[in-house]
Amino acid sequence: MKLKSISAVELEEMDSRKRINLINAIVGFKCVNLIGTVDDLDNENLAVFSSIVHLGSSPALIGFIARPDSVERHTLTNLVRSGVYTINHINTAIFEKAHQTSARYDAKVSEFDATDLKSEYKMDFKAPFVKESNIQIAMKFKQKIDIELNGTSLIIGEVVAIHYPEDCLCTDGFIDIEKAETITCSGLDSYHSTNRLSRLSYAKPDKALESLKIIYVD
Amino acid sequence: MKLKSISAVELEEMDSRKRINLINAIVGFKCVNLIGTVDDLDNENLAVFSSIVHLGSSPALIGFIARPDSVERHTLTNLVRSGVYTINHINTAIFEKAHQTSARYDAKVSEFDATDLKSEYKMDFKAPFVKESNIQIAMKFKQKIDIELNGTSLIIGEVVAIHYPEDCLCTDGFIDIEKAETITCSGLDSYHSTNRLSRLSYAKPDKALESLKIIYVD
Repeated sequence: MKLKSISAVELEEMDSRKRINLINAIVGFKCVNLIGTVDDLDNENLAVFSSIVHLGSSPALIGFIARPDSVERHTLTNLVRSGVYTINHINTAIFEKAHQTSARYDAKVSEFDATDLKSEYKMDFKAPFVKESNIQIAMKFKQKIDIELNGTSLIIGEVVAIHYPEDCLCTDGFIDIEKAETITCSGLDSYHSTNRLSRLSYAKPDKALESLKIIYVD
Repeated sequence: MKLKSISAVELEEMDSRKRINLINAIVGFKCVNLIGTVDDLDNENLAVFSSIVHLGSSPALIGFIARPDSVERHTLTNLVRSGVYTINHINTAIFEKAHQTSARYDAKVSEFDATDLKSEYKMDFKAPFVKESNIQIAMKFKQKIDIELNGTSLIIGEVVAIHYPEDCLCTDGFIDIEKAETITCSGLDSYHSTNRLSRLSYAKPDKALESLKIIYVD
């Protein structure tokens, strides 16, 4: 493919809406999920976040970036106060409803009601899961790290429970999220299903990679 | 789909390799790219990172998580010292070579040579791009934020140039990374191409979403 270039100066002079679309797209396919919380009065909140990141497996930590704007502040306020939240995968059946949660609803409005997604409570966990989501994670809030460069924050939580489709778990612990119909997104608004190219063996110098066979439990 | 559950206790008692596969998978599809750097003697280094995250568009900031292990430490040491690095999209043609860069090569070995990917230099930028990559980003190192919970670090950089396929840019600034053959990954080793479901309009309360038409520049 023939490449063109955009310089730092051109980037700075670019119309801000175009720059937002551009920079959100160039990072690559994003890890997008729905985050569920409740406020002090148990009012539910649900918001789509596309800046979720794996931090480590022992302890099992997941982070996400919270922006200083109104929609997401409900999520942040709620999870800091209650200490808990849920991360719910978005699948092909619900990606439009998931996108709709990004509308600026009033704090009193539940995005579950507004988008017709169903909340679900499990194992005495205080925050709501998304019933239509095939992979649901219960999270305990651990730390908020402020990023002074642009006023965002990295929110870190620990995994306390995982709910997953029984036929998607593999013998080596891998969960086949493509089989669970999880989707990805690019930019602010483009949603994509996936096709596996391959699972590759652990890379070592001077050893050729092999394609791993996917073996489900049972 | 019928869901099963894994509790925090089961997670803690799980074999560590299984837990690594599990936690890396449940986060969702990951933003995976190749990061190119040089050391003080201009020896090239290239490593695959699957924990890249969009931080903001003004200034244009991208972050990634660096782990305290040997392979990625070359990248970290190099970019802190030189002040620059490149982020290069992985496409269907090079995902196996990209995965191979995760092997623990000696610091003196260039992963470009070891994996047969070609380095490319542009516009006097000191760090190497991946020639086979269709979207290449020149980055200036801004800040390293240590995450004490697990010894990882959030590395923040600012976008200083973007190289992209000319037929992938849209009139609203969006770059069609699926058309550029960019792929995504899940877990530690599963690579996936994508199929667009839809680009959705900006969400507002009480307004139905529309599917956006993708209009390329020219």
